Amino acid sequence: MTDLSQAVARWQPLLGAPEGPAEDVPSNRVRVVFLGAGAAHLELVAPLDSDSPVAKFLSSRGEGIHHLAFRVPNVDRALNELAERGERVVDRHGRPGARGRRVGFAHPSAFGGVLVEFVEGP
Amino acid sequence: MTDLSQAVARWQPLLGAPEGPAEDVPSNRVRVVFLGAGAAHLELVAPLDSDSPVAKFLSSRGEGIHHLAFRVPNVDRALNELAERGERVVDRHGRPGARGRRVGFAHPSAFGGVLVEFVEGP
Repeated sequence: MTDLSQAVARWQPLLGAPEGPAEDVPSNRVRVVFLGAGAAHLELVAPLDSDSPVAKFLSSRGEGIHHLAFRVPNVDRALNELAERGERVVDRHGRPGARGRRVGFAHPSAFGGVLVEFVEGP
Repeated sequence: MTDLSQAVARWQPLLGAPEGPAEDVPSNRVRVVFLGAGAAHLELVAPLDSDSPVAKFLSSRGEGIHHLAFRVPNVDRALNELAERGERVVDRHGRPGARGRRVGFAHPSAFGGVLVEFVEGP
């Protein structure tokens, strides 16, 4: 979405208040805010500028579900395992993501059209 | 996706084996299988026939993320609360979903383009 506060207002009745303030993630050119959903999280994502990959997503598809993120013990290993199976990856190595985590994206072709983000964590 | 076993093969290296056998959900004209993802689940969904809403989704958008499901204490109440805020709902009342749960869908316009399913459970 383009307006994070509007998006928060939409989801807050279902999921409650954001888990923290909005955070800029320069490596992805996005501003994000997290809402808790049980043990999972909903990440609301807005582009920081018109060159952000998320700006391109919004202009081609409109608002909607952008990606799924899964916690993995080691991002580089997760990306490597995909590549070794002949799947495409967006990132060859992990890079800085939101909330101080290392992250890396697979290519949507690797998961049947679903953009998957690996998030390194215990 | 149209081929559930192929989809399972794609996701199994990341999420492990399905939590149970595939299940037909006649009310939605889909066949589904669940994979565990921490305390959450990934539901792989295939249309039972060409009139299934999921068949239409696949033909217009291709494979990808179809909807997000959230557990709520009472599906009817969740649908009513949305409707009372002037939002559109697909279902006015809960109906039988997968794994014996009552479910109901909001309209994507209610959540900024995201199709949301409410799943009744404790």
